Amino acid sequence: MVQHDGMVGTDGARAMLAADVASTALGIELVEVATGRARVRMRVTDGMLNGHRICHGGYVFLLADTAFAVACNTYGRTTVAAGADIAFLRPVGPGEVLVAEAVERSRYGSSGIYDVTVTRADGEVVAEFRGRSRMLATDVGTPVREQ
Amino acid sequence: MVQHDGMVGTDGARAMLAADVASTALGIELVEVATGRARVRMRVTDGMLNGHRICHGGYVFLLADTAFAVACNTYGRTTVAAGADIAFLRPVGPGEVLVAEAVERSRYGSSGIYDVTVTRADGEVVAEFRGRSRMLATDVGTPVREQ
Amino acid sequence: MVQHDGMVGTDGARAMLAADVASTALGIELVEVATGRARVRMRVTDGMLNGHRICHGGYVFLLADTAFAVACNTYGRTTVAAGADIAFLRPVGPGEVLVAEAVERSRYGSSGIYDVTVTRADGEVVAEFRGRSRMLATDVGTPVREQ
Amino acid sequence: MVQHDGMVGTDGARAMLAADVASTALGIELVEVATGRARVRMRVTDGMLNGHRICHGGYVFLLADTAFAVACNTYGRTTVAAGADIAFLRPVGPGEVLVAEAVERSRYGSSGIYDVTVTRADGEVVAEFRGRSRMLATDVGTPVREQ
Repeated sequence: MVQHDGMVGTDGARAMLAADVASTALGIELVEVATGRARVRMRVTDGMLNGHRICHGGYVFLLADTAFAVACNTYGRTTVAAGADIAFLRPVGPGEVLVAEAVERSRYGSSGIYDVTVTRADGEVVAEFRGRSRMLATDVGTPVREQ
Repeated sequence: MVQHDGMVGTDGARAMLAADVASTALGIELVEVATGRARVRMRVTDGMLNGHRICHGGYVFLLADTAFAVACNTYGRTTVAAGADIAFLRPVGPGEVLVAEAVERSRYGSSGIYDVTVTRADGEVVAEFRGRSRMLATDVGTPVREQ
Repeated sequence: MVQHDGMVGTDGARAMLAADVASTALGIELVEVATGRARVRMRVTDGMLNGHRICHGGYVFLLADTAFAVACNTYGRTTVAAGADIAFLRPVGPGEVLVAEAVERSRYGSSGIYDVTVTRADGEVVAEFRGRSRMLATDVGTPVREQ
Repeated sequence: MVQHDGMVGTDGARAMLAADVASTALGIELVEVATGRARVRMRVTDGMLNGHRICHGGYVFLLADTAFAVACNTYGRTTVAAGADIAFLRPVGPGEVLVAEAVERSRYGSSGIYDVTVTRADGEVVAEFRGRSRMLATDVGTPVREQ
């Protein structure tokens, strides 16, 4: 995320999330953002349930991935996800409110590693995600403005 | 996925996907299923785009995860995702039709490993996913009937 | 690691490492152990170098895996590695002393997730490892005594 | 691995392995190599056993990592491991001969994904490994000659 109009990195990350149709359409809210960190929240709707009547793992991943994207874009440079690993610890039922907290673990060269923990309202961890980020060599435009 | 009414494993997997609200709401279609394998398809809509105007990685993951879920539930026993790793190779634009093909790699005890390749219509691979499955010790009910 | 002769979990983990021929032959030393945590140390010898004259990634993994094994065996029950992911951040030269610190992240059912950071003497992180553990249903014998 | 003296990529990969002290000291042999593929073999010695009297997972990883390194260096350009995931499927006893077969799955930009299956002599799979490679922008020297 490039800086625009004097925005610092966290403002850029906020703007990026605001322009993220996929996340906002699902009701994902940004709770907190700081350099290298982000916390987002989402309520599990009936439309997110799989054939076992629990939240589809894809939506749990999507929430964690959004927290990761915000956290790794707080440095004022467009950064993308190169990959991620997720472990599913516990099932998530309909109506539950999930919180995903992303924390930077390491940065090296243009790469980074971010850990994201997804928690239910009762405090139980439902997923542990580790994302691998890549900062782009040249910024690919001005995503904030164009959207 | 337990067998019901004489359904073989692949029928059970089909029924499980049909009951998967999350996948069907996104227009995910089952193209092909066989023991330990599945191919599914999804069109990327505008609602799936992130702040960079490309498909949110969460939806690419969700598609791969659905192919994985179908493939690992072709043995007539309820099987869940314990975790997965995904590598994002290329961006995916709006309107593109993605195909995810899941192939079983190994099974051992109650665990399994499935490789899923996600491809664009032009044949380029956009993601490589590897899922880790766990067969449940006792079936948790009759997902086919109850939904 | 089963408890023997009144040993608490950390004593059992120490005994397990003492019986670990592979680790001790490489000069891996246990620096610290506590419930769910372990720190081990190893000097990189010339015999550990690969064709690029840097430490073979296999030995960096092995060190992290040893820290993980000790940490997840501090609960008095035999626990094995189901799998792990490692990211290589920086090269390691001959003669360097590496420290691997394992910290439990989550436990659920018979499974666990442990994060291991491998650091050079100059404080730079050289690898980030995440291990997936599985506690055995029935203890497979008495590893402490038999070795 | 740069090409030298007319060596094609696979010759360069062979030379790299020959210069790999860590692998050769463990008796790892190259069975076969082709563009994007490699098969290596190793006998598990008593010195490789852990506290459970089975082969330390670090040595299983090291063998797979060596096969991966050879396979991804068959293109005549120095390529390193950025990371890898391994799943341990079955234990390996002393004296067993393991074979690791690496096959390229995808290449994109300077990155690659390689799948390595490690098998016992009885044909059972003991580990599934997936490596992430990175081709270096500028070759870091002439590893073949200098060693």
